[in-house]
Amino acid sequence: MPAVILAPDSFKGSLSAPAAAQAMARGLRRVWSEIEVRLLPMADGGEGTLDAVLAASGGERRLVEVSGADRRPIEAAWGLLQREGSAVAVLEAAQVVGLTLASAAAVADRTTLGLGELVRHCLDQGIRRFLIGVGGSSSNDGGCGVLAALGARLLDAGGREVAATPAGLADLARVDFSGLDARIRAAEITLMSDVQNPLCGPGGATAVFGPQKGVEPAQVALFDARLRRFAELCDAWRGEAVAARAGAGAAGGLGYVFQLLGARNRSGAEVVCELSGLDAALVGADWVITGEGRSDAQTALGKVPWVVAQHARRAGVAVTLVSGAVEEADLSRLSGHFDGCFAIAPRPMPLEEAMAKAEALLADRTEQLARLAAAWRR
Amino acid sequence: MPAVILAPDSFKGSLSAPAAAQAMARGLRRVWSEIEVRLLPMADGGEGTLDAVLAASGGERRLVEVSGADRRPIEAAWGLLQREGSAVAVLEAAQVVGLTLASAAAVADRTTLGLGELVRHCLDQGIRRFLIGVGGSSSNDGGCGVLAALGARLLDAGGREVAATPAGLADLARVDFSGLDARIRAAEITLMSDVQNPLCGPGGATAVFGPQKGVEPAQVALFDARLRRFAELCDAWRGEAVAARAGAGAAGGLGYVFQLLGARNRSGAEVVCELSGLDAALVGADWVITGEGRSDAQTALGKVPWVVAQHARRAGVAVTLVSGAVEEADLSRLSGHFDGCFAIAPRPMPLEEAMAKAEALLADRTEQLARLAAAWRR
Repeated sequence: MPAVILAPDSFKGSLSAPAAAQAMARGLRRVWSEIEVRLLPMADGGEGTLDAVLAASGGERRLVEVSGADRRPIEAAWGLLQREGSAVAVLEAAQVVGLTLASAAAVADRTTLGLGELVRHCLDQGIRRFLIGVGGSSSNDGGCGVLAALGARLLDAGGREVAATPAGLADLARVDFSGLDARIRAAEITLMSDVQNPLCGPGGATAVFGPQKGVEPAQVALFDARLRRFAELCDAWRGEAVAARAGAGAAGGLGYVFQLLGARNRSGAEVVCELSGLDAALVGADWVITGEGRSDAQTALGKVPWVVAQHARRAGVAVTLVSGAVEEADLSRLSGHFDGCFAIAPRPMPLEEAMAKAEALLADRTEQLARLAAAWRR
Repeated sequence: MPAVILAPDSFKGSLSAPAAAQAMARGLRRVWSEIEVRLLPMADGGEGTLDAVLAASGGERRLVEVSGADRRPIEAAWGLLQREGSAVAVLEAAQVVGLTLASAAAVADRTTLGLGELVRHCLDQGIRRFLIGVGGSSSNDGGCGVLAALGARLLDAGGREVAATPAGLADLARVDFSGLDARIRAAEITLMSDVQNPLCGPGGATAVFGPQKGVEPAQVALFDARLRRFAELCDAWRGEAVAARAGAGAAGGLGYVFQLLGARNRSGAEVVCELSGLDAALVGADWVITGEGRSDAQTALGKVPWVVAQHARRAGVAVTLVSGAVEEADLSRLSGHFDGCFAIAPRPMPLEEAMAKAEALLADRTEQLARLAAAWRR
């Protein structure tokens, strides 16, 4: 009886990671009536991370009302895990300020206040360990909203509070940390992020990621200068140049503010592999199937399938990639990392058709690969 | 060291069968530096059959000048094999009257005379065994050209010879078989054809295949009636209802006239499997890869990959299909016959792109499948 681990990332735009793993499982069961299948849906810290972690680790899904990016109340999900005897909160920035959440506010008026409220809510419940996936955020506020929600005061020259938004930061003169929730300094915060950019400058959050969030090209320098001023004030309080650190530019500056509060950065995919117990599952496994929406040269720079493949290879287990698309120019670069790289489409077809039929095509493709594997296993 | 047999049909419009087998071999060699590869390019009796047979059986390629479909001289290739101590001529109708040969003549004026000349040329050399692939012809003359070239006379009511074409048959009143080359009656003729249609009627050569050769819908009944008259005269001479037999409607009536001359029909794919020594090659083989341009429900009705799969299954050897396209609606019908059905495209792409890049994509896909196979072989 073969033991197979299904550890895909989401197929962006068509399948969540759990749905992708389910589709793969259906394909396998058409070939092997007796099979041990482990579904370990993966994520990289962005949208879908919470669902993947909960599906793989068996944590508890909770809901709480917090401020959305436009300050209107939204219900945000978070996850509660027990790890080594203590509670761990799994937060996903995209649940509060996600790009795909319809936000009435322009990027200049979007705040990460709600994410700070979510952290405070967890602190109130006695939780001191945080895993925070920051990918997929629509905010560019440098994380000042998180800071404000945790008790720091953003003040103008006259001592009045300014809004915790890029627009509000225009008038920022001082940050008063005296009211900062002391519990957060004692917390263990792990950020799940693959972004290595600093907070400011040409490689910073605004210049690189701002435009896709709606920052006009003409405004990039202005937004960047406001974040720089904000960070100068915060770094002075901390006594370290946090803004220059790798990853400070993640998620419009959420990477900055959490590092300011003591967080360490880790690869989102690595953390999810760990939480899901991938290494333990690999013991005695015959095959790992991973996948993602589109695989190219970026995949080999630390994306989910690549991280899964590294773990599988270390364990000596065959690992196959099944993606929505594999860029043929990058195939030779990917080949060495996988025991076969495949796309889901069974014939030439438009991207839209492959996306619309992704679930059925993924099940079919996995089935066909299993047929080949079964033949060689005989 | 794995032993792999590469036995694809041609990928119509992009790759000949030998080129497809070569591309597959390149992919395999990227994975296994030590490997025993047997290239057995396949065909079904249509265009490419001669090349496939010669590539697989090591016969001799010959050229001879004969009349083309429009009577202008063309150089046609044929193959000479030695089998069980005697010479066998491999003829391909498409070499003389092929659909893809530019013909100046309209279908009403096309003749199969040249194919008869080719047969006579072989008879002159003492050859008495023929394997004739009749697929891919552009003719609709009932095979009267073949008969004329072999000495039968097609006469009108006044005893004048008529042209051996659909147009000429309009005036046909009598067929004089007295001059028919006696050697052909003593020959052993095997037709390679998968067509089961009779010569005439709604399921006949003209109604079913005429339009794709240029027979106008309004002319179908007229052409059909001329073939019926021609066949009545010939069947009367023979004393059998040959026109009603399965396969008489192959290749615009070539199936008829060769059966009239004593030929028996066989599946083209089966004959090529036999000539190429597939069954012997299967002994001790680990894997067969077959393929074709497009796989669908028709594939399971006796196309090359299906025939190859039957042989492989009987020998207990894994067999995988790699096609230009696999119709997903027919995948479940094909699945049981193959150890995996795959398409060459690594991502959603237009048909034209997949066809233009077919050689590289096929090598890549075979490589990736071999990587998976190699992992399960460990």
